[in-house]
Amino acid sequence: MELKTIENIDIVKSSTTKINEVDFDNISFGNTFTDHMLICDYANGEWQKPIIQPYAPFTIDPSAKVFHYGQAIFEGMKAYKDEQDDVWLFRPEENFMRFNKSAVRMAMPEVPEEVFLGGLKKLLELEKDWVKKGNGSSLYIRPFMIATGPGVVAAPAMFYRFMIILSPAKSYYSGAVKVVVAEHFSRAANGGIGAAKAAGNYSGQFYPTKLANEKGYQQIIWTDDATHTKLEEAGTMNVFFRINDTLYTAPTSERILDGITRKSLIDLAKRENIKVEVRSVLVDELVNAAKDGSLKEIFGAGTAAVISPISGFAYKEEYFELPNVEDSIAMDLKDKLTKIQTKLADDTFGWTVKI
Amino acid sequence: MELKTIENIDIVKSSTTKINEVDFDNISFGNTFTDHMLICDYANGEWQKPIIQPYAPFTIDPSAKVFHYGQAIFEGMKAYKDEQDDVWLFRPEENFMRFNKSAVRMAMPEVPEEVFLGGLKKLLELEKDWVKKGNGSSLYIRPFMIATGPGVVAAPAMFYRFMIILSPAKSYYSGAVKVVVAEHFSRAANGGIGAAKAAGNYSGQFYPTKLANEKGYQQIIWTDDATHTKLEEAGTMNVFFRINDTLYTAPTSERILDGITRKSLIDLAKRENIKVEVRSVLVDELVNAAKDGSLKEIFGAGTAAVISPISGFAYKEEYFELPNVEDSIAMDLKDKLTKIQTKLADDTFGWTVKI
Ligand SMILES: Cc1ncc(COP(=O)(O)O)c(C=O)c1O
Ligand SMILES: Cc1ncc(COP(=O)(O)O)c(C=O)c1O
Repeated sequence: MELKTIENIDIVKSSTTKINEVDFDNISFGNTFTDHMLICDYANGEWQKPIIQPYAPFTIDPSAKVFHYGQAIFEGMKAYKDEQDDVWLFRPEENFMRFNKSAVRMAMPEVPEEVFLGGLKKLLELEKDWVKKGNGSSLYIRPFMIATGPGVVAAPAMFYRFMIILSPAKSYYSGAVKVVVAEHFSRAANGGIGAAKAAGNYSGQFYPTKLANEKGYQQIIWTDDATHTKLEEAGTMNVFFRINDTLYTAPTSERILDGITRKSLIDLAKRENIKVEVRSVLVDELVNAAKDGSLKEIFGAGTAAVISPISGFAYKEEYFELPNVEDSIAMDLKDKLTKIQTKLADDTFGWTVKI
Repeated sequence: MELKTIENIDIVKSSTTKINEVDFDNISFGNTFTDHMLICDYANGEWQKPIIQPYAPFTIDPSAKVFHYGQAIFEGMKAYKDEQDDVWLFRPEENFMRFNKSAVRMAMPEVPEEVFLGGLKKLLELEKDWVKKGNGSSLYIRPFMIATGPGVVAAPAMFYRFMIILSPAKSYYSGAVKVVVAEHFSRAANGGIGAAKAAGNYSGQFYPTKLANEKGYQQIIWTDDATHTKLEEAGTMNVFFRINDTLYTAPTSERILDGITRKSLIDLAKRENIKVEVRSVLVDELVNAAKDGSLKEIFGAGTAAVISPISGFAYKEEYFELPNVEDSIAMDLKDKLTKIQTKLADDTFGWTVKI
């Protein structure tokens, strides 16, 4: 795949750069932004000419529907730099398609490929110095769209803003993540918006996660809201369970985000002759597997951390510590996937796209 | 109840007014705003000094968490003017308490009473000319809070903004509202945020409502997401069903907003010796009651329309038209409640509060 560029775009360059103020080796995720951002407004039923301009706050009406009705979606992707200083994206067309699926579910206009991918290409060309080489460095890309149209009436807006902002990132090792299996709270409803990357899906998790944090757990593994018996996904990650030598992960559904890391790991595992079963895993199964020792690993999968190993889980006031496995499938897959993303291994799947 | 005022507040008056440009008799709901707004920022773990200033767009960072994670809540209330030109609120302490309940659920800081109610009092004193007398006129009040803190990390923000904006409104007659009973889509999950007035609860309804609109229905009556057998509430209204001479409305729950209109109507109906039962109504019951003629009325209850009569509902491709009742309980209760709110009837409940 090759990214088409966009010609119909305005570019206003920043007269200064913040790049020298950034300590790229000690950077906390998601808090530093590059010099430029992309903006494209939707008005009168049409996408207007996009503009790349210096990163800065912008003005918006207090009655903008994003503030009142949460009409907002986003994506998360990463750019990597290889040894030849070329910049690469990982399956960007998947993010583009998922973004527009989210848009439809949230009654927002779909963003043209030219603006989303073409605009991103232009932006990355301008910001390529912000993509650092090696050592798990990457540039996190955050495309998002908000309803800027005014009015305190619960109905879709007439005006929207699509933006792309960029944030340099280190590989992040989150430490030993302990999780709680949700018994009461939930993330998504049947027939709800859980499969969309909609803003409203995330803030609802903050309070339950805070309660979990207070008890010493970093994350929650969500279960289905009707019965709380099926394991679904973590906060911003899909979840895999390794029982003996088979990996299990829930099928995607209306309640679960169709993660790009998840589906890449499934393909990669298959190529490596690791058994993967896509099916619902029951909480009871997990508890039993933990008790009889067949539960070897649990890990989250998502763009930000790629793979995040989980060291144990709590359920009904009981805590189950996972064994320390020698032959971690999680670490093996993480290494293989990261090498593909950073062009240190052959991309036999054709997943990487050069800017 | 009396509203305490706030002394520690800055007031910057607008040098002009838009009031003469407004045609108060022909005003569409939620699109016109008064001259001033209230802003109060939360930073460093504390609420700062609030300010009332001219209504205007404000600047915000593109990475503000409200845009990405939907950390946003709101309230909806109304001010009325009586024959003596006094301005009245309806149960404002209920909105204040519900707002802070929503804040807790969304991991946002609670707003002090002094800022929410005291600030509102100051703002209304300044804007009292915008509250028109009689004829169903009112001033719609929209307090809301958004996460202004930056960072594309899914965790609660460190900075928030509380605002109040005001929008003049006419009594709105929505016409004969036809609804669809939800068979697939849903509004809220068990253990989710449905009971909070959180922004994320609303935009998820836009797409299903659009599909309903395309089939000629204006609204959706939501059902429980697990079984779709229990009738819950409408988009921004609680729902009542009149079967024979008894009113039924679902109990509030984690999935249902605890509406102030709903609970006021329950009390009012009881005073009027109308039988009210608070219990889940099943879709099957509704269909059977429609078929055997015992279903007399359905109506939505909420601040914006007070009561919104529903003329029929669709379920499983079948449409059930409601009879034209002579002795509408909906219309009777609406009249009585509106008279209390506008001080045309004795407020035996002590619901109204003078500014
Ligand atoms: C809820 C949720 N699940 C899973 C994921 C993982 O998706 P991806 O691998 O495409 O980043 C994300 C996004 O990061 C997410 O927000
Ligand atoms: C989802 C929902 N249900 C019901 C209501 C009715 O609540 P109230 O009567 O307090 O306005 C509202 C708010 O207007 C609402 O947003």
